[in-house]
Order: sequence, then C-alpha cells, then structure tokens
Amino acid sequence: MVILTLNCGSSSAKYQVYDWDNKDVLATGVVERVTAPGSVITHKPKGKDKFVKESPCPTHKEAIELILDAITDKDHGVISDMSVIGAVGHRVLHGGDKFTKSVKVTPEVLDTFRSVIGLGPLHMPANIMGIEAAQKVLPNVPHVAVMDTAWHQTMPPASYRYAVPKEWYEKYAARRYGFHGTSFLYTAKRASVLLHKAPKDTNVIIAHVGNGASMCAVKNGCCFDTSMGITPIEGLVMGTRTGDVDVTLPFYIMRQTGMSVEEMDNALNKKSGLLGLTGLSSDRRDIADAAEKGNKDAQLAVDMEVYRLKKYFGAYMAAIGPVDAIVYTAGVGEHSALIRGRALEGLEWMGVKIDPVKNQLANTGNAETCISTDDSKVKVFVIPTDEELVMTEDAFAIMNGTYDVHTNFTYSFQDPSYKNKAREAALVKELEKNPDLAKIIVRP
Amino acid sequence: MVILTLNCGSSSAKYQVYDWDNKDVLATGVVERVTAPGSVITHKPKGKDKFVKESPCPTHKEAIELILDAITDKDHGVISDMSVIGAVGHRVLHGGDKFTKSVKVTPEVLDTFRSVIGLGPLHMPANIMGIEAAQKVLPNVPHVAVMDTAWHQTMPPASYRYAVPKEWYEKYAARRYGFHGTSFLYTAKRASVLLHKAPKDTNVIIAHVGNGASMCAVKNGCCFDTSMGITPIEGLVMGTRTGDVDVTLPFYIMRQTGMSVEEMDNALNKKSGLLGLTGLSSDRRDIADAAEKGNKDAQLAVDMEVYRLKKYFGAYMAAIGPVDAIVYTAGVGEHSALIRGRALEGLEWMGVKIDPVKNQLANTGNAETCISTDDSKVKVFVIPTDEELVMTEDAFAIMNGTYDVHTNFTYSFQDPSYKNKAREAALVKELEKNPDLAKIIVRP
Repeated sequence: MVILTLNCGSSSAKYQVYDWDNKDVLATGVVERVTAPGSVITHKPKGKDKFVKESPCPTHKEAIELILDAITDKDHGVISDMSVIGAVGHRVLHGGDKFTKSVKVTPEVLDTFRSVIGLGPLHMPANIMGIEAAQKVLPNVPHVAVMDTAWHQTMPPASYRYAVPKEWYEKYAARRYGFHGTSFLYTAKRASVLLHKAPKDTNVIIAHVGNGASMCAVKNGCCFDTSMGITPIEGLVMGTRTGDVDVTLPFYIMRQTGMSVEEMDNALNKKSGLLGLTGLSSDRRDIADAAEKGNKDAQLAVDMEVYRLKKYFGAYMAAIGPVDAIVYTAGVGEHSALIRGRALEGLEWMGVKIDPVKNQLANTGNAETCISTDDSKVKVFVIPTDEELVMTEDAFAIMNGTYDVHTNFTYSFQDPSYKNKAREAALVKELEKNPDLAKIIVRP
Repeated sequence: MVILTLNCGSSSAKYQVYDWDNKDVLATGVVERVTAPGSVITHKPKGKDKFVKESPCPTHKEAIELILDAITDKDHGVISDMSVIGAVGHRVLHGGDKFTKSVKVTPEVLDTFRSVIGLGPLHMPANIMGIEAAQKVLPNVPHVAVMDTAWHQTMPPASYRYAVPKEWYEKYAARRYGFHGTSFLYTAKRASVLLHKAPKDTNVIIAHVGNGASMCAVKNGCCFDTSMGITPIEGLVMGTRTGDVDVTLPFYIMRQTGMSVEEMDNALNKKSGLLGLTGLSSDRRDIADAAEKGNKDAQLAVDMEVYRLKKYFGAYMAAIGPVDAIVYTAGVGEHSALIRGRALEGLEWMGVKIDPVKNQLANTGNAETCISTDDSKVKVFVIPTDEELVMTEDAFAIMNGTYDVHTNFTYSFQDPSYKNKAREAALVKELEKNPDLAKIIVRP
C-alpha cells in the first residue's frame, strides 16, 4: 500500500508517493503554474529518470489528475494503479484553533477550513481546492488534513495572545497560531531520540530556516512559543517577508505613498525580507555571495537575519530555561554554516558553543549532525526535516484507526533504529566524497 | 539662575523649574486640557501648598503664559521674575535620524522637526507649538530641544533597520528610532555610578516600565538596541499600546470589521495593551488588584506583560552578552514588585537572582535600590528616573557652551556624591516609616 501526500499552493501542487510496507519514498514531484498558462509537471520517480511534461491545468483537479497519471504511468510510474493508494495526506496551512492534531476530512472539516479562510487568504483556498479535487479523483480512500498550526495548540495563552482589544480574539480569533508545525514535530521528536530522552523530558529550541523561517521553543516535548503569528509573516527575517516590524509602520508608509491595504500586505509578504533589503534575491546563497563580494545591502541583510535569530534564541532561552539542544532545520538551517554560526556567536556564556570546523562540515540534507563542541552544555544539532513523513504517518494512522495527538502517539521515526532509506543511500555517496562528514554524524 | 523645562503634549504642558545654583527643584506642574474647554493648571511649588486654577488655554501659548504667571506669582511663585530664567529645555518626541544629541532651537531646527511630523503625528505638532509659544513669551533665552530619540542614534544598522523594502528607509526614513532616550541616558549613567564603572565599560539592560514601556540594551555605555520602533508602539505590552504584534494582524481585523486605517491606528495605540486585554484599566495597580481577586483577563494581562519583558531580557542578554546589571525604572519599574519579580523568574541560570524580600521592599521613587541576591552575577537595580534633570543639564550646558554628545560629556549626576535634594528629603520621612528600606539602598 502507498500513501500519497499533497501540498497544494495557490499555483502549485507538490506530492510524494510513499511505500508504506517498505518504508520508502517511491516518487516526489510538483505541478507548477496551476491555473495559469504553461502548467508543467516535474516527476521524480525513484531509480528512474526525471520526467517533465507540459499539460494544461486550469484548476487543481487537472493537476491532481496529472499527478495520478504520472505515478501510474507504465514507463515512469511507480505504482501499478490507483487502487494501491491507501490514503491521501493533505497539507493545510491553517486550522484556526479548532484542531490540535491531524484529522480525517469530512464535509464538516471542510466547512471549518472555509470558516478560517480569512486567516490564510493566500493559502487556504488552494488547500481546500486541492482536497476537493483529490476527493473527486480518489473518492474511495480517506483524505487526511495535516495542519501547520496543530502542533502549536499547546502554547499557553501568554504565548499566543496579543495585547489587542479582547473582542478581536473572541470574535475574530485573532491570536498567534504559528506555522511549520509538522517540521517542528518531526525535528523535536528526532532531537529527543538524539538526546536519548523521552519527548516529555526534552527542552529544545528549533530554528526552521528556509525561504520562510520560524522558531519554536519546545518545553517538555510540546510547543511553548513560536515566532510566526496569526499569519506566517511574524518573527524572523525571511526571504521576502519582513518578520517583526512595528505594527504601525505600514500606516506611516501608506500615508507617505498612498499605498492601499492590499498593496501594503503584498509588499510586506512578497517584497520585503532579504529581497527588500537588497533588491537582489531572497536566496541566502545569492545574499551570502554578494555580501562576500562587498555588497553593503547584502552584508546588512546577513547581519539582520543572524541578529534576529540570536534575539529569538535568547528570548526562548529565557522563556523555557536551560535547554538540552538547539536544532537547525530546513534549507538554510541545513546548509548555511554562515547563518548558523553567526546567529549563535557570543552565546558561549549561555552554554552554547559551536565548533566552527564541524559547522562548516555540516552541509548535508542526508544526515543528522552535531556542530557544537564536546563541552558545550547545549547541543547544537542540524536535523534535516521531513514534513512529508509526518503527513504520511498521520494519514496512515488515521486510516488505520491508531492515530492520536502527538503526545499520545509514537511515530516510526521515534525509534532509535529508524532510518530514512533515500537519505541513507545518498549519504553513502556523500561520505565517499567527503569522509570527514562521518565525524559529525550523530547516530542515536 | 533657573532652568525651565517644558513637555508639551497634544492637550497638556508639563513643566519643572530648577534652581541651577542650588541644584534643587523649585516647582513642578502641569496644565491640562490645553486647546479644550476647562483648561486648568496644577502648580506644585517647593515648600508651599499646591495651587490649582482654571484659565482658558485655546493654544499652548496661553498655557505657557499660565505657567509663567504661576511660577512668578507673589504668593505661590518660586522666582521673582522671568529674567532669572536662563534657558528653556523642551522635550521633543522625534528628531528623526538628524540629531544625536540635544540642540539649540533655531529656525532650521524647527524646520527639521516639521519635516518629521509624519513620524510622530500625535506628539510633534504639540512639541513644535510648545517651542514656538515659549519662544514668543521668552524671546531672549536659548531654547533647547531634548529628543527622546537622540540617545538611540548609536544603534548599529542591524538593530535599527527593518526587513522592509529599502526605499522605505531611503525615501521615508522608516527605521527603528526608539524613545524614552533621556530616561535611558539618566539610568544608564547612574548604573555606571552604582557599579563603580566608567560608562564605556558598562553593559546593562534597562526596562523603563510606565504607562508607556520600553527596554534598552546598553553596550559599553551606549544604546545598542531598544524595543520601541519607528513609533512608540513596538515592543513591550503597555497600558494601552499593543507592543509587538504580527504586522499584518491589523489588515485581517480591518477586513473583518471594515475599520479604517485611522481607527485601527487609534485602537492599537489607545485601546490595546492592558486596557484592551482586560477592558478594565491601563493602570498596573488596578490590573494587579483584579488579578489578585481572580479576574482571568487581568491574570492573563499580567502573564503577558511579564512574559514579554522576560523575552526581551533574554533577547538583549543574547545580543550584548553577559551584562553587569538589569535596571528597572519609571512608575511600574520603580513600584511593582510583582512585575519586576515575575519578569526575571527562572533566569537564575543566566546569573540573575532576585531576592524576593528585597524586591518587596523596593517601592520608593526616592532612592536607588538593589533587589538581587548578594551572589547574583547580574545586579538588579531599581533606579528612579529623572528625565527633567537631563533636560535641565542639556539646556544649561548648551546655553553655557559646554555641551557635547553624552559620550563626551559628564553630567552632574555622574558624580558619586550626587544627590537629588528633593528625593533625599522625602527619603528621610520614608525611612522613619520603613527602616528596612535602608537595607536595599545603594550608595555609590
């Protein structure tokens, strides 16, 4: 049996096909330009060549049909037919405060998602369309919604409330929600494994730094606070999003420029962050290169990104007391020694000591590594995230009737002997090229 | 000779008359309801009864005339005539990024203030009107502008820039400015005195917590970062202001409610914070009382205020490394053991240990006290602020030609033997009632 996971954005649909019996990824891929001219699927089957094909996708329904065609194709497909799909896991941005865990999609659940579209106007319509389209094409399997917000529902009110008129909370559910929940769940559980601790005894701070970026303070294995807010704009400096800003700065700029609310919302989300500061790029590699070559804007952008990270590390260390580990994950967290190292510079007195050589070595998405010195009180781990696996396991367990909220549920990857087969295979090749990498790999 | 200091708000004018030769405050007072019906002056001359009088003040000019009448009155006045006024110090909210120190008011300076009205639309018009009115009434003395923002001009760009489109900074000067600068200057210098260190060797974190509240990380005696931003709304939870909020939350609420930008700006500044959370009050004493009696909203408001403070303490400890001291100042900082204690709870592992008995004792605005344990690596001081004295000294020194930026200037209160006469007198009476207070008073 396979589990299909889907992540439908406004103009894209990502997917993964997971062989549950053999615990292995069979294919990943993405349909881009959905609802626009020139829709194209890029399909990556395991052990076969990449397959790319243009095909019109006026709605998400055609995109999902395209995905199903690709994965069942006799040449580049990975399953014989659709009947082997046991369940579908759908990534959903926002569950409001209604869901503390993943859930089987019912008409009532879809109604709840529709009721919180206002909280995620950019993502929720696509998320809902993706589910509806997939239900039409695969009507006989359970569809499961995995929400970015569910993990964060353990936050105490002092973490999730804003100091705004309380009617805004009571009537409009205006509060901090947090995002990247599946990534935090995965990396928090893995950190427990690496620390040889039960999740309930684990205190860690996780920095998920990709194009979007957020941080999570994990106390006793549960989310205690997180940097993203009612929307995914709050907190860290991101590729194109501002992170923290004086809440009335937009009004000042609107008065100066005549910009509308919509234009301002767009500028803060799409034209800010590293891109806004530099005018160059939202990609950390471009920014780092430009900074290296002396570009002042890029140097400032790096300074700001690492300083914001450092302040959040300090804030969360104050919030949850001495922590067992700091975890970096996602694209930048897994690959940028520059960002990782500079964000933790000067925190030695708090018990955090990075080993610069280890930090430079840690540039693999295929292994869990430790980049702190042996005498660092706080371990610093780099843990490649695996959101799709959480989605897959939630979907399977809900189908199977064995699912529960994460504090009462044990994921396969919480087993010390757990291995990601695809990453292990890739790691073998990496180690041939760079044997030193072995020195920093952590095996539970 | 006396120095007059003035602080003109949109509907008020506060003042202090300082006897420079005897280093003593002769009178303080306020005109309220300026520009509104029922304007009234409350004048408090040293050693005489309080004097209250209604008198129409359609503009700030009449308010300043009322002040001058009061301070030169033969019964309740404190000076013989206006000729003994040597200089006037004016509090000005916003100097943009044009001023790193106080400045003698010239037509050019006033033009600069006018050019940044957009940065402080609520305060700047009144500040400017106050200066113009005082210049008319006292045309022959130097008028000096003391800006809340000047102290913060030493921040590095990574502290003061926002991750927004760079044109917003270049064209509209959109950046973090910080406020409460005179209070931070005073308390930072006093902390150096209490620590027996030169300012350049002093690292402290100062929490100015009043109705408005902000925090300042002081590295080597200079502002390194501060929690208020382009406006005085960012950062800590305040009486009626939100502090930190997801920058796009207002747009969500505007879409839900149809509120205008102006209504939203007003709600975030005037109807949020502790008042917004509780619907009760912006006064910490009311909030603490209600929390004590079991009011859930008030309990949450206290939790949120202390948690926000704690996160900023952590952030700034990470930002500037081990600090010599934490300083509390302003109304709440000087008087609320509850807020002070809870905000630093659990930071013992960072070297911060509050003595709960000392903390309870520290409830005087008349002495500098230490509330940390003897073995606390980080001292925790409560230092009554004195913004008027900074204004007075700046005004005098500018008149006298001896003024310079604070790193090149020595204030009278940097002398270990400095004493505030009025506070010393009040302290004698306090000590009679509460001799234990002596145990926590710090004498340099």
